[in-house]
Amino acid sequence: MTVIYVITTGGTIEKGYSEQTGSVSNLDSKIDRYLRQLRLPDTDVRVLPLLNKDSLEMTETDRELILEKVRGLLDKNAPIIITHGTDTMVDTGLHLQRALHDLKAPIVLTGAMTPLGFEGSDGLQNLTESLLAARTLAPGVYVVIHNQVFPVDRVKKDRELSQFVWIS
Amino acid sequence: MTVIYVITTGGTIEKGYSEQTGSVSNLDSKIDRYLRQLRLPDTDVRVLPLLNKDSLEMTETDRELILEKVRGLLDKNAPIIITHGTDTMVDTGLHLQRALHDLKAPIVLTGAMTPLGFEGSDGLQNLTESLLAARTLAPGVYVVIHNQVFPVDRVKKDRELSQFVWIS
Amino acid sequence: MTVIYVITTGGTIEKGYSEQTGSVSNLDSKIDRYLRQLRLPDTDVRVLPLLNKDSLEMTETDRELILEKVRGLLDKNAPIIITHGTDTMVDTGLHLQRALHDLKAPIVLTGAMTPLGFEGSDGLQNLTESLLAARTLAPGVYVVIHNQVFPVDRVKKDRELSQFVWIS
Amino acid sequence: MTVIYVITTGGTIEKGYSEQTGSVSNLDSKIDRYLRQLRLPDTDVRVLPLLNKDSLEMTETDRELILEKVRGLLDKNAPIIITHGTDTMVDTGLHLQRALHDLKAPIVLTGAMTPLGFEGSDGLQNLTESLLAARTLAPGVYVVIHNQVFPVDRVKKDRELSQFVWIS
Repeated sequence: MTVIYVITTGGTIEKGYSEQTGSVSNLDSKIDRYLRQLRLPDTDVRVLPLLNKDSLEMTETDRELILEKVRGLLDKNAPIIITHGTDTMVDTGLHLQRALHDLKAPIVLTGAMTPLGFEGSDGLQNLTESLLAARTLAPGVYVVIHNQVFPVDRVKKDRELSQFVWIS
Repeated sequence: MTVIYVITTGGTIEKGYSEQTGSVSNLDSKIDRYLRQLRLPDTDVRVLPLLNKDSLEMTETDRELILEKVRGLLDKNAPIIITHGTDTMVDTGLHLQRALHDLKAPIVLTGAMTPLGFEGSDGLQNLTESLLAARTLAPGVYVVIHNQVFPVDRVKKDRELSQFVWIS
Repeated sequence: MTVIYVITTGGTIEKGYSEQTGSVSNLDSKIDRYLRQLRLPDTDVRVLPLLNKDSLEMTETDRELILEKVRGLLDKNAPIIITHGTDTMVDTGLHLQRALHDLKAPIVLTGAMTPLGFEGSDGLQNLTESLLAARTLAPGVYVVIHNQVFPVDRVKKDRELSQFVWIS
Repeated sequence: MTVIYVITTGGTIEKGYSEQTGSVSNLDSKIDRYLRQLRLPDTDVRVLPLLNKDSLEMTETDRELILEKVRGLLDKNAPIIITHGTDTMVDTGLHLQRALHDLKAPIVLTGAMTPLGFEGSDGLQNLTESLLAARTLAPGVYVVIHNQVFPVDRVKKDRELSQFVWIS
């Protein structure tokens, strides 16, 4: 049984629709509920809810909190997935990459352009891909999304196209 | 083959999520796409997109436009469904009830608390119910939603509970 | 709060796929689980699982059992929905119609051409329609399916078209 | 843009429900339709329908046909996914492994325990995983399913558990 940690921080992937306000926002963590739709007979996924924020509102303090959470897990030598808003996902990933050395397992950042459970959502696809990447990639910090695997220092978000692209 | 007209005016039922803005709004009509999920071998549903508005932004001019659209269909003696935002659905229905006399078929207003295609949406349920109500109710103006049928002058929205309730 | 009884007897609407045999069959009742997808703030649906059979295998004894179950509920003066395989749904309905007199509420038979939860299923549509019909129809025995309401002595199944049609 | 070939051969993943017979069988290819639910901005998936068979009915001639199809694609140096019934997926994979040498890209076999589009299906999960595996694995022949990656000579199906397990 392979252990994979999933740290949730909010972002579009976890947003929900409020009938009272008629708007979408980060209400609570819903990664756990969607992971139950996957068959994972040999994977022990441990979800650790940490933040519940739109990534445009993430502060340096929040990134430090994520770093400390990751650091606390490193001695497990297990892959770590971080679900995160796409707008500043790369910033958080670079922060981790700069601070962490001698990784023994991959750290995968993922998220979604449309919330889990909304028609056309890419959330479950990205979670599924990240779980497979977490088992198969070499140690390092990556963004995994839309059937693409990017080392975190080689990627940026293209907001207009709603996708991630390589930087040279 | 029974003809039923469906006039769409926007409202939550038709809202969509924009990846660029991260918010929900009335982008375009999607009633038609969802009706295709239903089996209607003996029903000829004719969708007539009219407005694309949050019902809180509906003006008297808009209500007059809806009334004129309905009036133009009355000589068909066919049921009419109007999809509408729930916040002012009753206002529009009362406007129709006051202006129209000697109806030969029911006029049904419906909508949704959560947009079509979002998890937990009540949109397809309400469309399904309205189509059946349109075939079976006596002439008159009704709100049909959540397995309830209300004459339009006997109902109000309870915003906190996200449902419609009787008034005495 | 309106009470509606739902007697489940099996049929395609409740069939499930078995990974061990690779086939579909009536494994257990799943009406209850799908009803939870509907918003029914003013309806108290009481599901009574009775049989779990393909309707082609239903015997006269089974029909007698359904009749006795219905008879036992008549003093509630509440609508009754019977979920049933489509192949012999009309036979069961006619059996009820012949035996029961002075009904105070409608009895609605419904089912599905494709099981609940299979792509393209008409099951949830038919349940939704039947619940509305149960609240609005006059006393009598009906088949409700695909936005159609048939008195049970006026309908037959067209197997080739997968729909119900009027008989003269 | 990365090219990935997908050869479809039938199996449970592509089975469909027939309303006329009330049973599931391999009617036609539906991989293509489900792939459209995924966001693949940088992947050019080319679906090549080859067979439409329950894998228990696959003959040596069928396996030879699959081998020839794969052989014909080898000069593209592109990853190949083969969708296949799970019961004899390993047999087909071993046949390919024995016959093919000096692979330049991975060959991934996948399938499903429950057909695409049936509630609880693992089909889209397995397709999503296979597409990621096809981009990231070293050359070789693999079974990819349920967040597991198996070299084809190290795996067998456990029919009772509906999963794949390691052999020593």
